[in-house]
Amino acid sequence: MLFSVGYCLKLRINLPVFRNFLHTSNPRQNEWHLRPLPLNLKSPVPSDIEISRAQTPKDINILAQEIGLTDDEYSLYGKTKAKINLNVVKRLKDTPNGKYVLVVGITPTPLGEGKSTTTLGLVQALSAHRDKNSFACIRQPSQGPTFGIKGGAAGGGYSQVIPMEDFNLHLTGDIHAVTAANNLLAAQIDARILHETSQSDKSLYDRLVPTVRGKRQFSKIQLKRLQKLGISKTDPDSLTPEEAGRFSRLDIDPKTVTWRRVVDINDRFLRKITVGQSPTEKGLHRETAFDISVASEVMAILALSTNLADMKERLGKIVVGFSRKGEAVTAEDLGMTGAMAILLKDAIQPTLMQSLEGSPVLVHAGPFANIAHGCSSIVADAVALKLVGKDGYVVTEAGFGSDIGMEKFLNIKCRISNFLPNVVVLVATIRALKMHGGGPKVTPGSPLAKEYVEENLTLLEKGLPNLVKHIENAKRFNLPVIVAINSFVTDSDRECTLVKNISLQNGAFRAVTCTHWEHGGQGAEELADAVIEACQERNEFQFLYDLSLPIEEKVKKIAKEIYGAGSVEFVPKVKVLMSDYEKYGYDKLPVCMAKTALSLSGDPKLKGVPKDFTLTINDMFVSAGAGFVVPMVGEITKMPGLSTRPSVYDMDLDTETEEIQGLF
Amino acid sequence: MLFSVGYCLKLRINLPVFRNFLHTSNPRQNEWHLRPLPLNLKSPVPSDIEISRAQTPKDINILAQEIGLTDDEYSLYGKTKAKINLNVVKRLKDTPNGKYVLVVGITPTPLGEGKSTTTLGLVQALSAHRDKNSFACIRQPSQGPTFGIKGGAAGGGYSQVIPMEDFNLHLTGDIHAVTAANNLLAAQIDARILHETSQSDKSLYDRLVPTVRGKRQFSKIQLKRLQKLGISKTDPDSLTPEEAGRFSRLDIDPKTVTWRRVVDINDRFLRKITVGQSPTEKGLHRETAFDISVASEVMAILALSTNLADMKERLGKIVVGFSRKGEAVTAEDLGMTGAMAILLKDAIQPTLMQSLEGSPVLVHAGPFANIAHGCSSIVADAVALKLVGKDGYVVTEAGFGSDIGMEKFLNIKCRISNFLPNVVVLVATIRALKMHGGGPKVTPGSPLAKEYVEENLTLLEKGLPNLVKHIENAKRFNLPVIVAINSFVTDSDRECTLVKNISLQNGAFRAVTCTHWEHGGQGAEELADAVIEACQERNEFQFLYDLSLPIEEKVKKIAKEIYGAGSVEFVPKVKVLMSDYEKYGYDKLPVCMAKTALSLSGDPKLKGVPKDFTLTINDMFVSAGAGFVVPMVGEITKMPGLSTRPSVYDMDLDTETEEIQGLF
Repeated sequence: MLFSVGYCLKLRINLPVFRNFLHTSNPRQNEWHLRPLPLNLKSPVPSDIEISRAQTPKDINILAQEIGLTDDEYSLYGKTKAKINLNVVKRLKDTPNGKYVLVVGITPTPLGEGKSTTTLGLVQALSAHRDKNSFACIRQPSQGPTFGIKGGAAGGGYSQVIPMEDFNLHLTGDIHAVTAANNLLAAQIDARILHETSQSDKSLYDRLVPTVRGKRQFSKIQLKRLQKLGISKTDPDSLTPEEAGRFSRLDIDPKTVTWRRVVDINDRFLRKITVGQSPTEKGLHRETAFDISVASEVMAILALSTNLADMKERLGKIVVGFSRKGEAVTAEDLGMTGAMAILLKDAIQPTLMQSLEGSPVLVHAGPFANIAHGCSSIVADAVALKLVGKDGYVVTEAGFGSDIGMEKFLNIKCRISNFLPNVVVLVATIRALKMHGGGPKVTPGSPLAKEYVEENLTLLEKGLPNLVKHIENAKRFNLPVIVAINSFVTDSDRECTLVKNISLQNGAFRAVTCTHWEHGGQGAEELADAVIEACQERNEFQFLYDLSLPIEEKVKKIAKEIYGAGSVEFVPKVKVLMSDYEKYGYDKLPVCMAKTALSLSGDPKLKGVPKDFTLTINDMFVSAGAGFVVPMVGEITKMPGLSTRPSVYDMDLDTETEEIQGLF
Repeated sequence: MLFSVGYCLKLRINLPVFRNFLHTSNPRQNEWHLRPLPLNLKSPVPSDIEISRAQTPKDINILAQEIGLTDDEYSLYGKTKAKINLNVVKRLKDTPNGKYVLVVGITPTPLGEGKSTTTLGLVQALSAHRDKNSFACIRQPSQGPTFGIKGGAAGGGYSQVIPMEDFNLHLTGDIHAVTAANNLLAAQIDARILHETSQSDKSLYDRLVPTVRGKRQFSKIQLKRLQKLGISKTDPDSLTPEEAGRFSRLDIDPKTVTWRRVVDINDRFLRKITVGQSPTEKGLHRETAFDISVASEVMAILALSTNLADMKERLGKIVVGFSRKGEAVTAEDLGMTGAMAILLKDAIQPTLMQSLEGSPVLVHAGPFANIAHGCSSIVADAVALKLVGKDGYVVTEAGFGSDIGMEKFLNIKCRISNFLPNVVVLVATIRALKMHGGGPKVTPGSPLAKEYVEENLTLLEKGLPNLVKHIENAKRFNLPVIVAINSFVTDSDRECTLVKNISLQNGAFRAVTCTHWEHGGQGAEELADAVIEACQERNEFQFLYDLSLPIEEKVKKIAKEIYGAGSVEFVPKVKVLMSDYEKYGYDKLPVCMAKTALSLSGDPKLKGVPKDFTLTINDMFVSAGAGFVVPMVGEITKMPGLSTRPSVYDMDLDTETEEIQGLF
């Protein structure tokens, strides 16, 4: 009996189910059946939201089947999002990884230069126009700025993730889970300090290890604490009073608590607060703050964990502060490892969405690029590299310029993941280069000065050294660099040619003009071809520094070789911290520089390629769970604020159609 | 050509898809094809989590199809949860509602007396043992207590929602969305106060109504504010300076701001805090607090809205504080209506889960019962009432005793929804009745005194007046009452018989012993039959009070007729507030009493049926969006804390199997 697909459809039997059957009976791995979505290009290019709404996304169930996921490897979250179980990496363990393409930028204007747009345009070109398995891996945006400044983070023009509403709102709840895990730990720190203050060692011990139904025993996490203290007993009644006291009393010095609460909202009044002022807290008030959730170490951990077990271990290692004796107090000491892992159990699964042309996109994690490492997750890249297979391409993005996102991507993320990129795509705009050449200030919300919308080869030429420095930065890691000019309709041919010539003269593998904003994947075909070509070459990747170097040397290497600093100054407080960190072994961690993205130097006002400047490290902290030391260059705000007229004033919800208005 | 189901299965084509085809070709509404899940009853009854894990839930996609939902009426969230679109109510607008069964309790011990368990047991009996379409509607639990005290809120024994992990963690993110909407409003209040402090009227106006690309216009929500101010102009340049000033300056008096931030965590150090202490906030620090998210007015709004449009309107009406001139400042004045509605767009869809026996359960909203109205959502009940159809049953639950949950359910929720219950199921335990008779204190975590585990007719008899009072309370609304004894294995037959006799003598329609904890739906068959019988009777429901009564009279009526108070005292501050409220028309709202649940009186220590006590109203506030006035009886904490040993110490996540340990 012949089973016709037509008959299936008539019977409302989903085609993907049938496709899945084909997969199963013919288990050739990595053969995709991707159906690209055709674009209906319009000129002039409509607004992002109009383009997004004009496209009908595939049911995400269909996309999941197209890229070879089995039914039990993904969970649907509505019709446009699905979470992917990390087991897929185990199933495909024998499949070689695909090619790994890193998209970074030059030093940006405050408007951003289109890295996400280029990432999506490139994947659309590879998938829909070159028939290559390919995946975009991008960060989940914070909801804070979504309600502050108009504009989403889903790419732009004809290179976007859709639907952009889902992408920018809640998504599958990962940031909410990060917030919950972060804040539960914060609540437990303060509650523990309170309970220790009001109880004797014995009473603390009796409460921590109570007799339940006649039985008294340590829980698993308590046994770990005993182990850490070098107490090998397992019967709670056998501990000496001294041992019981050491076990029970963490003796956290409230002044040393660095763990802060977080909220995924631009709430400036939480930048500095006093907690514990209710009489029930017995006078234990202290100053602290809320950061925005994406600045949380928990977010960095989510992004850097290689699997669930690794995430749990990193959570346990989080250092929240120090005891009065100077011992580091960890989340594990506070009994929090399991609880936090439980809260993040689903958040570790990357979210599958799609581009305007129906290519697969993984959205996962969104650590700040200025304060954390600014890259999407290792597990998302891992899943994508397996799914595309040997001949496929994973295009992943690092925040801001090569000095910020790329340096951290290569020295932190790649060191943990062991995935080394094949090529760096360096996104540049004529606009940003003109700014580096001395063009007028670029301010969000204000119209662009005429220098930016008319041909001006002089300004452009003066700005090109910034691009050259970023090319050099990538080549410092021995990686081939493709310069992608994310072109605007106002850029002239002569301007683009100038940029291309200078790029090639300075060692770029290729330099291409891209019009994916205007034309979708078709506008990035030349870029795609250059990427395919570059990935066929071997490269001799090398890290910038060895982990065994002292913190000071690591910082100096980054500052001098990547930023172009003449010297580095460490304030006395930081010198003390660095010698403290040696005691705990934190000096063997990579460093995660917290620096402005708006200049290669520490001063956002210095454009172009600042030279011989002194970089001052004025503070430092450790993220022991994420696994890096953060040297601070100047003040980096971890909590944005709302302006007099935040974008909420434009927002509305049509309660009949459920259409969101004014979000973008 | 014959299409055989067997062949379908072989081809991995899901049966529900085929079922759906049957539905579509034969669109008889409300004909369910529910497949009950068989229970494998064990004795002694294993732990809740063991029972939950021993059952394999149906793919939620299958359940959705079984109860007649069409493909576009639900969105999957993983394999065990789905959100239901409210459009289903429109599609079934001509279908008569099913029967409406309200489950309430007597005055509970701190352990709870099994209302959720009875709700689930009853629905399992109706669905799986009496072949009736039936739905359980329950609240989503707060995540705060989940990480504080051991034990979930998913029912117990063989009457549970499954999987209990999903039920107790994140669910589909509704509480996270409530938190986000609440806190975005809070951020906007403080930011606005700051911006108004540092800017002139003109500068404020120019920022609020900027010229964008040569055009200057009011946004929709700004036009609403103009309307409220009685300014009928629409051209921003035509306002007089005086009008522009009135439009721009909300002039919020920081001392009057009652809107607090929230977090879904037991974080006691946030009970009283000072915000705005960073120099960037220019000295505008003020005292405020975080409440637990479920105590937020936004949660009450989610629960009381009848549809999306109604929710949006209620959000706009939220009063956050008062201007220096004494005018109420609303979320609408702050431009927040649309943004909050956008954040809550998906949260208004109830979440479909299932019971241990595969009956459908709607989980939605979870307003506190002591501080808010304590019932699951109106929209969940609306969806369920349509889906079960005329001959079906919706069993919904109200928090705590009849004095708390039931009174608010009937006077607040039913007044808005217009759904009137057919019968009240009053859940009682022998344990609680003995406590009311003078039994020893019942404390969570401590073993029960022997009075509770051995027959003791004397204590029980002394405690029965509490049950009788709750029967009378329900009858005060002209509703038939079925007493459901949620029996424990230690209860004797003579004890149960005594309770039944006294119940019937005092006007109960029926009184039955239930063993659903031990036997699942089978143990609630007698209860199901009593419910079916009671629903065939007509009842002449009447509200307790008329909305036109002054606040004082409404409070007195509840206090005297439901609580049994002798008199009610209002402190002077409250008297002033009540006369203020008259000015704004808030006196026409229903009242939502904030009172302890552990006694019929305001004093949690007074058990049984306290008489002739004075109830003191010592504070009052208005939830203008939710639509009620809250008279406070004593202090009700809106932020629980973590104990010395919160349940996090028992928690772990098996990173191989992803199994959660120690959560329950």
